[in-house]
Amino acid sequence: MTNIEIDCVQRNASSASLSPYCGQPSPAYTAGSNGTSAAGDLKKCRFSETALSRPLSRTGSDSDEYLKFEVGAQTSYKPLHERIEKRIRSGTPFFSLEFFPPKTANGVANFYTRLDRYKEGDPLFVDITWHHSGDPANLNKETSSSSIAAGCLDYCRMDTMLHMTCTQYTKEQTIAHLEQSKRIGLRNILALRGDLPPNTSSDEPVVKPVHMALDMIKWIKEEYGDYFTIACSGYPLGHPEAASYTADLQYLKAKVDAGAQLIVTQLFFEAEAYERFVRDCREIGITVPILPGIMPIQGYESIRRIAQLSQLTIPESILAALEPIKHDDDAVRNYGRHAAVEMCKRILANGTAPAIHMYTMNREGSCREILQELGLWHKRPMRALPWEPHGVNHPVRCKEDVRPIFWSARPKSYIYRTRDWDDFPNGRWGNSSSPAFNDLHDYYLFNLHSTVNEKDKLRDMFGHELRSIEDVGRVFARYIDQKENEHGVKVTTLPWNEQESGVQAETTLITDDLVWCNEQGVLTLNSQPSVNGAPSTDALVGWGKPGGYCYQKAYLECFISSENANSLLEFIDEHNPRINYHIVNRDGTLDRSNAEATTPIAVTWGVFPGAEIAQPTVVDPISFRVWRDEAYDLWLTNWAYLYPKDSGSHTVIQDIHDSFCLLTLVDNDFVRPSILFEVVREMVKRTEARRSTSEVTEKLAATFVA
Amino acid sequence: MTNIEIDCVQRNASSASLSPYCGQPSPAYTAGSNGTSAAGDLKKCRFSETALSRPLSRTGSDSDEYLKFEVGAQTSYKPLHERIEKRIRSGTPFFSLEFFPPKTANGVANFYTRLDRYKEGDPLFVDITWHHSGDPANLNKETSSSSIAAGCLDYCRMDTMLHMTCTQYTKEQTIAHLEQSKRIGLRNILALRGDLPPNTSSDEPVVKPVHMALDMIKWIKEEYGDYFTIACSGYPLGHPEAASYTADLQYLKAKVDAGAQLIVTQLFFEAEAYERFVRDCREIGITVPILPGIMPIQGYESIRRIAQLSQLTIPESILAALEPIKHDDDAVRNYGRHAAVEMCKRILANGTAPAIHMYTMNREGSCREILQELGLWHKRPMRALPWEPHGVNHPVRCKEDVRPIFWSARPKSYIYRTRDWDDFPNGRWGNSSSPAFNDLHDYYLFNLHSTVNEKDKLRDMFGHELRSIEDVGRVFARYIDQKENEHGVKVTTLPWNEQESGVQAETTLITDDLVWCNEQGVLTLNSQPSVNGAPSTDALVGWGKPGGYCYQKAYLECFISSENANSLLEFIDEHNPRINYHIVNRDGTLDRSNAEATTPIAVTWGVFPGAEIAQPTVVDPISFRVWRDEAYDLWLTNWAYLYPKDSGSHTVIQDIHDSFCLLTLVDNDFVRPSILFEVVREMVKRTEARRSTSEVTEKLAATFVA
Repeated sequence: MTNIEIDCVQRNASSASLSPYCGQPSPAYTAGSNGTSAAGDLKKCRFSETALSRPLSRTGSDSDEYLKFEVGAQTSYKPLHERIEKRIRSGTPFFSLEFFPPKTANGVANFYTRLDRYKEGDPLFVDITWHHSGDPANLNKETSSSSIAAGCLDYCRMDTMLHMTCTQYTKEQTIAHLEQSKRIGLRNILALRGDLPPNTSSDEPVVKPVHMALDMIKWIKEEYGDYFTIACSGYPLGHPEAASYTADLQYLKAKVDAGAQLIVTQLFFEAEAYERFVRDCREIGITVPILPGIMPIQGYESIRRIAQLSQLTIPESILAALEPIKHDDDAVRNYGRHAAVEMCKRILANGTAPAIHMYTMNREGSCREILQELGLWHKRPMRALPWEPHGVNHPVRCKEDVRPIFWSARPKSYIYRTRDWDDFPNGRWGNSSSPAFNDLHDYYLFNLHSTVNEKDKLRDMFGHELRSIEDVGRVFARYIDQKENEHGVKVTTLPWNEQESGVQAETTLITDDLVWCNEQGVLTLNSQPSVNGAPSTDALVGWGKPGGYCYQKAYLECFISSENANSLLEFIDEHNPRINYHIVNRDGTLDRSNAEATTPIAVTWGVFPGAEIAQPTVVDPISFRVWRDEAYDLWLTNWAYLYPKDSGSHTVIQDIHDSFCLLTLVDNDFVRPSILFEVVREMVKRTEARRSTSEVTEKLAATFVA
Repeated sequence: MTNIEIDCVQRNASSASLSPYCGQPSPAYTAGSNGTSAAGDLKKCRFSETALSRPLSRTGSDSDEYLKFEVGAQTSYKPLHERIEKRIRSGTPFFSLEFFPPKTANGVANFYTRLDRYKEGDPLFVDITWHHSGDPANLNKETSSSSIAAGCLDYCRMDTMLHMTCTQYTKEQTIAHLEQSKRIGLRNILALRGDLPPNTSSDEPVVKPVHMALDMIKWIKEEYGDYFTIACSGYPLGHPEAASYTADLQYLKAKVDAGAQLIVTQLFFEAEAYERFVRDCREIGITVPILPGIMPIQGYESIRRIAQLSQLTIPESILAALEPIKHDDDAVRNYGRHAAVEMCKRILANGTAPAIHMYTMNREGSCREILQELGLWHKRPMRALPWEPHGVNHPVRCKEDVRPIFWSARPKSYIYRTRDWDDFPNGRWGNSSSPAFNDLHDYYLFNLHSTVNEKDKLRDMFGHELRSIEDVGRVFARYIDQKENEHGVKVTTLPWNEQESGVQAETTLITDDLVWCNEQGVLTLNSQPSVNGAPSTDALVGWGKPGGYCYQKAYLECFISSENANSLLEFIDEHNPRINYHIVNRDGTLDRSNAEATTPIAVTWGVFPGAEIAQPTVVDPISFRVWRDEAYDLWLTNWAYLYPKDSGSHTVIQDIHDSFCLLTLVDNDFVRPSILFEVVREMVKRTEARRSTSEVTEKLAATFVA
């Protein structure tokens, strides 16, 4: 192994949105700075030319909207209705997604995972229904509408709209619901009357609605002014309980006049219905955006039931088309997809619809395909930061732009642990680590991950029987190289990963280094290569707006045996100040570092036109100790629990948990090839040497005794 | 001119502590980043090898003390007595300097200039006497002891001790003096009884001291606890009014027991006196540091007068040595210097003295030479930041580590204008520009500069008669190239410089660029070259602790004619986002920029081991408008005033003041050769083209008329 080979390190424990640059046999972005022959090197400025030949339009809305978070641009929250209007002005169609709250706790974890996948397409907002029987305002219930909306905002970083009904509540109760929504950071409400409670007995009088959506809209404006973006529903064929289509239109006008800034329509089956509705709205002076609610037909029975509930008639032409294929689910879905695409294409093309609001029914396949066919699915071409910021979607976190590296594969855990912060690090970490991190003890939600995956599946990945640390190391190694293990399965997650996505496919020399480490019992949790001035548009390590340069210090985080810890401490100070290390054990009785006690180290930074330096990722000694507890606990909560308490496998994991040390290494020289793996090799070599010496001594002793 | 030649820009208006790197025919620190052949370039990493082959001792005190400010080390104020004790423990001798307040306003400006020169040698602190007849507590009087001490701390960035006497004041008055000292940031007090007021008539009773130094020390401890470092005076031969040497020692012990943390001795003529005094102090249990007060003999009459005032006897041996040379001032000074060096060498070498406290009598030559001969004069080998920070010397400014670039040649003005800030930018500029900048209207002190220099001398530099903008441009050009002008003098300062030190001697291709600009009427105020990863130890552009890398974006600030402004605005947007510009006119009716309205641009930054990114210099649009007013005013206050109001020269300057625009340019691409001078050339070319077209038109018109 040469110096050159070890400069790029696979970010192994992350879902690898910060993907390594592994396609080259040399340090990818080591610029080879020099002061003696710079003139000759100027021709080689590949990065700068790539970066700067793409002009950045400062006034164009597209790049703003894509990035949502612009380094140095002093991000602040922008109301949803303003962003929608901006999109409409610039003629950039978008989509939004409606979901109902999942019914079970397991469903919640799956739901967020699905949302993360939806997020790739860049929806403008998500819309959560008010599920009356699900105790919708109860934040202590993880499946409530309010909990789910908060999760969408906090953990999935999406701008979130919450439906809210009023007819079954007093005004005070509704205000309390709004107040709570404000407290958890929501800024968008879809105001609805709500279904009338069914008559349980024919003796009871017919229930009349106490409050209407119009009332709630007025209350919101009275109590909260412009705080909330208010949406309301529109009925292309008229509300079934309305006196007439015209009366319903007039009621809609009243809602808009009272403060509704956005109309989301009921589902419809024919483009003409929506087109007429929009025309009629405009004619009576309704000027706010009208988003068409699209529900693709995903099944024969389900669409009939939905139509019935909505008191809508399915057009004969559709029923006729479905009739011959109604027992073929795939054929029905294909028909539904095709019909939706055709209808959406038409209303988008003729300018009636500025966007598509998708009634997903919590499903994924059809909706995604429809959006892709419509060209609305925008896989974001650029990353705003190495980690996913909330951007303009969150009223408090919109200014957040620095995080410790430790949680990079567990961002939801980090968001959970910092959710009570009033203020987030902005520009630099500084002393930001002083605010308390929340405990994880009631962090039920994301630990569900491992119960959602059946234990059997996890045992196939993590091993049916673990006899030694070597067996554990092999699990880590298979996660890195993504080769099938002895059960013929791929290790797509580790206990320290929130998502099950494996590492990037590229197998490279760097992967070899990490595999080697893990096979030696150096269990790598997190790592990043050094980067010396890659263009911000680089597909692998770039982030932020075009025209900038990105940098990284090489980083490695791993669990090592106490023998290895001793070996390391013998020589690591020789590399001062180039290498900063921090090594701890589980109970903190070992806690050594050669860095300043409270000074964070920036390990990822970027230089951009017209801005201060961005430094989104730090290694911070104080938050590292918080991470330590979480990292150790995950051995037991997400791995050891797979085996019986007194089994050998459980003991192996428990022993690692009890005796291993957690180590971080930062190579401060990002210009020269990283020496982090040299350090690891030296450590392992010393441990082996000591072990073989003592074996020899033992053998000798045994000989003498014999 | 090629691209290569224009990458390094002379920082012309600064006293050039951030000196340009001009010795190379190619961009000095353009690393030529590349991703395709990095392996081959690794050999060329000259910077990183230079930087990292010097190990940084993290525990050593020397580098800490030298730098005083360590990037990322979360600087905080360290009490003077602690720093003195640390120096003593580490066996690192140091020196301190005592001054009396100058008597005139002109003297004040000269005094600070002298102190700036003294600061080069790195004194640990300066000590200002309480000059009773000078109204010492009156902050409205620029020559008062308190004003001078505040100036030493604020503008000269030196840890400052203020003498304070008490016998003539009530306790309340003394507390008020202390309170004021605290308010202006002083942390060190030398507590003295003070001279008794002389009896003006023999009829009055003999005045008895009301309060003693011991009283004041007790009051300080009572009222301020550990806030102040308290020093007191010690008398190697006993205080002349003391009952006995032993009684005086006991009184000294009482002062130390009451809280004095440091003893500064009265002057003495023989090493033995100091050595015996220290031994006697230690014997009775005085353990605090005892700094020897050294007053070099600088004149025959003066030393006799001082001895008389101090009631000290000059030893016969010294009188005998001086007698034959007493009319030869140089010989007396040489003798005095030699005697002081010999005495200091002895007490430093035998460990009696941990340091030298120099009674400078406000002079410079001898004291500096003595300190140099003793090896105590440490020209600081490294810069902590591109500009001189206060470091640990200032209780509030110790955390300051970001400034706008505009005041780089007028740091005292910047300090004055921000002196009311409670909090200084730390780590990044961010929104720090919101606090108000003080006006300069009572900023008398540093405008004295131009009255101190006689007007004649300035007219020799700035021109006896100015007939055109070209004449003005030539003054700027001679400042840049430091060639003698038509009067045979060098232009060593411009109205925008606080110090009179000229630019660096190196004349290079870059100087040529700036000279060319100024001769074209593009009047350059400030500039810096781009730097791409120079080692922090680099003699020219490096700063901060070893092992780091320094970066700069090219910057140019200049006054340009409105014709040039029009030309520039025609094409400058073509360079978006690479070039950020901000152009204003005097009254702000023109104020255009392509940068974010409130976002600062980092133009100097550094990456250091174990720290966040340091970004000490920014271009900030908000503070630029504050600087604009100052920069325009200086045309009139520091230049036009040299000429009669209705003279042609006055009119030329007044016209520039009235009609020119102030422009800043930042080249965001620090990796490729800067294009700032290409932009300037294009601007000038367009202006010339327009001018010649209109001349042709005029000639044609004239022909037709004829």
